[in-house]
Amino acid sequence: MGYTTSTEIDIPKTCKAGVVENEGPDFKLVVEDVPVPQPGPDDVLIRLNTTGICYSDIHYMLCDLPIPTMSSFSVRSPGHEGAGVIVALGTNVTNWNIGDRAGIKPAYDACFNCELCWSGKETYCHESPQIGIQFPGSYQQYLLSPARYTSRIPDGVDDFSAGPIMCSGSTIYCSLKESGLKPGDWAVFPGAGGGVGHMGVQIARAMGLRVVGIDGGEEKKELCMKLGCEAFVDFTKVDDVAQEVVKICDGKGAHGVFVTATSASAYATAPMMTRISGKVMCVGLPPEGTAIAGADPLLFIGKNLHIIGTKVGSLLDTQKALEFASRGLLKPIVEVFPLSKMPEAVAKLRSGKVAGRLVIDFNTWE
Amino acid sequence: MGYTTSTEIDIPKTCKAGVVENEGPDFKLVVEDVPVPQPGPDDVLIRLNTTGICYSDIHYMLCDLPIPTMSSFSVRSPGHEGAGVIVALGTNVTNWNIGDRAGIKPAYDACFNCELCWSGKETYCHESPQIGIQFPGSYQQYLLSPARYTSRIPDGVDDFSAGPIMCSGSTIYCSLKESGLKPGDWAVFPGAGGGVGHMGVQIARAMGLRVVGIDGGEEKKELCMKLGCEAFVDFTKVDDVAQEVVKICDGKGAHGVFVTATSASAYATAPMMTRISGKVMCVGLPPEGTAIAGADPLLFIGKNLHIIGTKVGSLLDTQKALEFASRGLLKPIVEVFPLSKMPEAVAKLRSGKVAGRLVIDFNTWE
Amino acid sequence: MGYTTSTEIDIPKTCKAGVVENEGPDFKLVVEDVPVPQPGPDDVLIRLNTTGICYSDIHYMLCDLPIPTMSSFSVRSPGHEGAGVIVALGTNVTNWNIGDRAGIKPAYDACFNCELCWSGKETYCHESPQIGIQFPGSYQQYLLSPARYTSRIPDGVDDFSAGPIMCSGSTIYCSLKESGLKPGDWAVFPGAGGGVGHMGVQIARAMGLRVVGIDGGEEKKELCMKLGCEAFVDFTKVDDVAQEVVKICDGKGAHGVFVTATSASAYATAPMMTRISGKVMCVGLPPEGTAIAGADPLLFIGKNLHIIGTKVGSLLDTQKALEFASRGLLKPIVEVFPLSKMPEAVAKLRSGKVAGRLVIDFNTWE
Amino acid sequence: MGYTTSTEIDIPKTCKAGVVENEGPDFKLVVEDVPVPQPGPDDVLIRLNTTGICYSDIHYMLCDLPIPTMSSFSVRSPGHEGAGVIVALGTNVTNWNIGDRAGIKPAYDACFNCELCWSGKETYCHESPQIGIQFPGSYQQYLLSPARYTSRIPDGVDDFSAGPIMCSGSTIYCSLKESGLKPGDWAVFPGAGGGVGHMGVQIARAMGLRVVGIDGGEEKKELCMKLGCEAFVDFTKVDDVAQEVVKICDGKGAHGVFVTATSASAYATAPMMTRISGKVMCVGLPPEGTAIAGADPLLFIGKNLHIIGTKVGSLLDTQKALEFASRGLLKPIVEVFPLSKMPEAVAKLRSGKVAGRLVIDFNTWE
Repeated sequence: MGYTTSTEIDIPKTCKAGVVENEGPDFKLVVEDVPVPQPGPDDVLIRLNTTGICYSDIHYMLCDLPIPTMSSFSVRSPGHEGAGVIVALGTNVTNWNIGDRAGIKPAYDACFNCELCWSGKETYCHESPQIGIQFPGSYQQYLLSPARYTSRIPDGVDDFSAGPIMCSGSTIYCSLKESGLKPGDWAVFPGAGGGVGHMGVQIARAMGLRVVGIDGGEEKKELCMKLGCEAFVDFTKVDDVAQEVVKICDGKGAHGVFVTATSASAYATAPMMTRISGKVMCVGLPPEGTAIAGADPLLFIGKNLHIIGTKVGSLLDTQKALEFASRGLLKPIVEVFPLSKMPEAVAKLRSGKVAGRLVIDFNTWE
Repeated sequence: MGYTTSTEIDIPKTCKAGVVENEGPDFKLVVEDVPVPQPGPDDVLIRLNTTGICYSDIHYMLCDLPIPTMSSFSVRSPGHEGAGVIVALGTNVTNWNIGDRAGIKPAYDACFNCELCWSGKETYCHESPQIGIQFPGSYQQYLLSPARYTSRIPDGVDDFSAGPIMCSGSTIYCSLKESGLKPGDWAVFPGAGGGVGHMGVQIARAMGLRVVGIDGGEEKKELCMKLGCEAFVDFTKVDDVAQEVVKICDGKGAHGVFVTATSASAYATAPMMTRISGKVMCVGLPPEGTAIAGADPLLFIGKNLHIIGTKVGSLLDTQKALEFASRGLLKPIVEVFPLSKMPEAVAKLRSGKVAGRLVIDFNTWE
Repeated sequence: MGYTTSTEIDIPKTCKAGVVENEGPDFKLVVEDVPVPQPGPDDVLIRLNTTGICYSDIHYMLCDLPIPTMSSFSVRSPGHEGAGVIVALGTNVTNWNIGDRAGIKPAYDACFNCELCWSGKETYCHESPQIGIQFPGSYQQYLLSPARYTSRIPDGVDDFSAGPIMCSGSTIYCSLKESGLKPGDWAVFPGAGGGVGHMGVQIARAMGLRVVGIDGGEEKKELCMKLGCEAFVDFTKVDDVAQEVVKICDGKGAHGVFVTATSASAYATAPMMTRISGKVMCVGLPPEGTAIAGADPLLFIGKNLHIIGTKVGSLLDTQKALEFASRGLLKPIVEVFPLSKMPEAVAKLRSGKVAGRLVIDFNTWE
Repeated sequence: MGYTTSTEIDIPKTCKAGVVENEGPDFKLVVEDVPVPQPGPDDVLIRLNTTGICYSDIHYMLCDLPIPTMSSFSVRSPGHEGAGVIVALGTNVTNWNIGDRAGIKPAYDACFNCELCWSGKETYCHESPQIGIQFPGSYQQYLLSPARYTSRIPDGVDDFSAGPIMCSGSTIYCSLKESGLKPGDWAVFPGAGGGVGHMGVQIARAMGLRVVGIDGGEEKKELCMKLGCEAFVDFTKVDDVAQEVVKICDGKGAHGVFVTATSASAYATAPMMTRISGKVMCVGLPPEGTAIAGADPLLFIGKNLHIIGTKVGSLLDTQKALEFASRGLLKPIVEVFPLSKMPEAVAKLRSGKVAGRLVIDFNTWE
C-alpha cells in the first residue's frame, strides 16, 4: 500500500460531495457519493469537518469569469476553504501525523523553486494551481492536499471558523500586511460588514489600527461597531462618503483604504479618501471592466497615492491569520448548513443578502 | 540695514529678469530691469548664474492648468530651477556664508512643523508654496530664498547642470527611491530620451539597476544607449511595446516602470510591462483627464501590481541627486541660451522638439 | 516689547524653580525665586504645570557621567520633561497661540538643515542641545522653548501624564518603532515594571504585540499583568531567565527584547532570549563600561541577531506616543509631589525604590 | 532503476574524492576512489567540474570548532562549494534536465515548511544540514543534492568562478542586502582583499555603493583599487584606522562596515567607523570568545548603532550573486589546482597567505 493510515481511523471507500452538473448559467449542485481518493507519495488525505461556500465557487459553476473551468477533473467539486483532520499520509510525508488538524486554502500547491516561492509570494507562482478548479475542491468530504502546502489549524480555532479564515481571513491579512500601515494609523474598510470586511475589521484592530467601517444599513453598523470600528459611515445615508471619511480621519484622510466591497463605486471613491502617501488596497473582485475611477496620474502625483492589489495570502499569511484567531482576536461570523442542504446554501449565497460566511457541517446530514 | 552683504560683492539696485506680460494664450515674455529684492531676516539673496526653462513655466504663463496663477506678486517671473551664489544674508541666517554656491527648486519653503515635514515629505506640506507661481521665480537674476530651504551645490557640478537637477533630477531621483527597486532589478523608462527620462536613465544606472529605454527615433536610441540603457524599445517601430519590454526583462516584465513620458498611451501600457509585484511609478504630467487604462482592480490583484505617484524631490532627495552629479554619474544634457534670448528659449520649448533641457546664461547677454 | 502676551494672562517677573547648588556628589537642590525669562523672536514661553523628575537629572547634578555639566547657564535648573501652557510668543512665532497646551522634551532644538533632521532623526543632529544641561530645564516653572521644537499636548492627556511621556514614553515608542516588530510578535521587556518599561508594555500592547514582562517581585508582577503582559518572569525566582522567555515565546524566543532595565545583567542575557532574526533594542543606560556580553560575532552570525540602540524619540515619535495616551492606551503611573517638596522627590528617586515616575505639581506649594 | 540518466552520459561506478583521514590536529587528506552515489527520488546527481577549498573545511577536518564532526557519513569528503552538470535525476525530479549546469552551496537542504523557509531565511531552518559535515561534500566528484535545493548556474559564469560564489559570494551578497544600504552610501570592508572581501567590494560597487577597502600591504591595495574601491586604508601604515575611515566618509563615518576579516581587532574597531544610524555587519568568523569591543549600550544608544550578523545566503541570494557574475560585475580571483594536488591546496590554505580562492579542477589530474 502506497500510503499510511491509522488502524484506528476507518477510511470509507466513498464519501459525500457537492458535485456540480451542467456548469453554466443553469448549473445544478447535487450532493452524491464519490470515491475517496488515495494519496500520492507527497499528499495527505484530509477528512473535512467543514467547507466554506464562497462566491468564487458560484462564479466557477456559472463559468462567468475568463478563467479555466472545472471540467478537467473527474469529481467536479468546487470549494477552496476547508478544515478537518489528517487521516492518511503519502509515503514521503514526514511533517504530518494522522490525527493532526489541517486546513486547505485556495492555492493548491506551488513549486518552491522560483523567486516568488522563495520570497513568500508563492500564491503568484506560475505553478500554483487553484483547488476547486484545477483540482477537486472542498465540497468533497475526503480531500487530497500536498503535505507541504497544507495548513496547520492551531488550538483555539474551531473548524467552522478555520474554513473561512483559510480564504477570506488570509486574504485580508495579506492586504493589511502589504499596506505597511503602522499601529495608530487609520484603516478604512468599504464593505466592512461583508464576508471579508468583517474579518478585516477584527484583524486591523488586533494590529493596533484605528478602524472606520463603510457599509449600508443599521444592522451592518451595529455589527461593525461591535467588531471594533471607531466610526461607521453608512453609504445609504451619507452623500459624500469620501468627504465623511476624511473628516473622521483627522481631516486628512485614511492611511489605508481596504476595498473589500466588490462594487465599482467603492473603487471609484477609495482614492479620494486617502491622505498624503495613503494606500488604496484592492481586495474585492469588482465586475469585469471596472476601472479605478480615481486612477488619474495627476492625483497619484499630487498626493503620493499608492494603489496596490493583493490576492489570497501565502502559507505564512494564513498561519498568521489563524494565530490571531487562536488568540481570540478574530472570529468569523458563520451560518452553518447541514450537508444535505449544501444546494440551499449555494442558492442563498447566490441570491445575496448573506451576513458573514456560509459553511457546511459535513458531520450533520440534515 | 536688516541683512548682511560682503564688501567685496557689489549688489546692484536692479537686475535683469524674464517677465511675463498678458498671461494667457497670447502671453509675451520680455527681458527687462526689475528691482533687486532685499532679504527678510530668514532669507538669503542669490545671484543666479543660470535658470532652467521648464515646460511647467509655459503652463503657468498660459494659465492652462487648474492651479493658482502668478498674478499675485509684483515681479511676474516664472522659473523654479536656478543655480548661483549667495550674495546677502538675512539677519537670522547662520547656516550660509556669502559666496556659497546655492540652488533653488520648485518648492519654495515648508513649515517644518508637521508630520509630513518631519518625515522627509515636506514637498507635500500644506505650507509649501511654489516658487515661480506664489513667489517670483528664477527667471529673475537676483532671487530670494528661505535660508532653510535653499540647496547647496557641491563641487564638481557646474551651474548649468545644477539648475535642471534641482527640478527634473530631484524628481526622478525621488521616484526611483520610492520605488524600492533593488540593484539588479529592471527599470524601464517610457520617455527615456526626454528631459526627465535621460536623467532617470543615468541615476538608475548609478543605482545598479538594469535600464530599458522607451522612446521614438534613432537619435533617442543612440542617446539612451550612450547613457547606459541595456536595451531600447522604439515605439515608432514596435507593435506591442509592453510585450517587447516583458521579453527583454527575462520574459517576466519590469520590476519598475517610470513613466517620464507625458502621454496617455505611456500610462495606458505601463501596467502591462511589469512582472509580479512590479511598480508603475507616475512622474510625467499627462493631459488632464488621463486615466491609467490598466488600472483595473483585477489586474492589481492578479499580479500584485503597485501604482505609485511622486512629485518633485525633497531637500534630501535633491542633495542626493546632486551628489550623483558631483561624482560624475549624472550629467544633464543642456542647451544654453544667452540672457537676451530667453524669449526665444521659451518659444523653442513651447514648439516642442527639444533635446534635453534649456537653460539661460545670466552672465552672457547675447 | 519683543514678544506677544495675552492681556488675560498675567506673567510675573519671577517664578519658582528647583535650582542645584554645589553640583557634584554633595549637590543640593533648593526651590527658590528666579527671573521669568523673556522669549527671543523664535521662542515660546511656557508656564509649566508639571515637571517630571528623571534619573538623568540626578546624573547631571552629580556630574557622574562623561557629558557636559550645567554650569554654563545662569539658572541652574535641570529637568527635561514638562507640560503646561503657552503664555507668550516671540515675534516670529506663527504656529502657536497663547493658551495652547505645550510640552518640552530632552532635546531642546535641532538645525532642520541636515540629513538627520530631514530624516526624522533630529535628536541625533549635531546642533541638538539638551534642555536641562545646555539650557535651563523644566524644574523652572516658566520656561523658554523654540517654537518649532515644542510639542503639542492633545486633548485627553493630563499634564501629569504628558510630562513623563515627553521623555520616557517618547523614548520607548521610538525603540518599538525602530525594532520593526509586527503585530502578533513577541516583545519582551527587562525592567517592565520601571519608569520606561511600564510605558513600553502599554504601547507594545497598543501595537498588537504580545508582551512578556521581566522584573522582580510580586508587586511588579501584578503591575505588569494589569498593564497587559501575557506572561511575567520574576528574575528573583527564575534561574535561567532567558530560557524561561524562550519557552514562553513558542519555544523559539522573542522577536524583540527591549532592555529598559539599566543593569549589566539585563544586557548580558538579552541576546540569549531572541529567536532567529530577533532584535535586542538598547534603551536603558547601564553603568559605564558595560558591554553586551552576548555580543559575540558567532552568535550574531548564527542567529541573524540584530542589536540596535535608540535614544529619546523625535518630535514625530513624541506626537505618536501622546496620541496613544490621548486614546487611553497609555497612562503613565506617577507619584505627584507639591512644589516645595521637589528636594524630597529628588532624594526619593536617588534612593531608588520608586514605582513609576515622580512629577512635581507647580500649582501646589505643599 | 530508481532514477533517470541519459544514454549519452556515462556514469562510472567510482569516482575520485578528497577524503579525510585521522580527523583532528594531524588530519590527512588523500585523493582516492569512492563509489558514485545513486540519487534518491528527490535528488539530482551532479558531476562536479570544480570544488572550492574553504577555510571552514579545514576547521571541520581539524575538529577545532564546537560543531558536529564529519564522522557520521561513509565518504568523509568535506567541501561545500561546487559547480558542475546534472547527470542523473531521481524519479520525482521534474525541475531539472540532464545536462543542466548546477552548483551546490553550504546548506544542503531545508524543510520548506516553516516560517523561516517561507521568509527566504531557509539557511536558518532547523532542518538545514550542512553539506561537507552532515552529508558528503564537494571534494567528491560525483555528488548528490536535493533537486529543490540545487542552484542553477547561469550563462556567462564559468565553473571556477561559480564555486566560490556559491559560498563566499552568496554570503557577502546576503550581508549587503540585509544592511539596507542605499546607492551612494559608503560601504567599508575590513578584509577587502580577502576571499570574501574581494567579492564584497565588487558586489557593493555593482549596487551603486561607494567602497572603502581596509587591508594590509601594497598588493592588497592594488587589488582593492582595481576592483573598485574609492579609497584604501592600509592597517599596517595607519595608526587610527577608524578615524581614517570616518575622514574619508565625509567626516561622518560609514553607512555600513562589512567585517569580512576574521580578526578580533577588526570587530573591535568597526563600531567606531560608522556614522549615526550606521550598520556593523558581522560576516567573518573570528576566534571563539571574540566580543565586539565597541558593543557598549551607551554607544549603541548615542549613535543609533546597529550590529547585525548574517550567514551564508539563501537560494535566492545565491541566484542574485550569480546574476551579478553573469553580467560581468563579479569575478572571483581563483587559483586552480589539478585534482591530484588537492592535498597541496589544502596545505597552502592552511598555511595562510592565499590571494583569492583556491579551487580544484576535477578534469585535470595533474
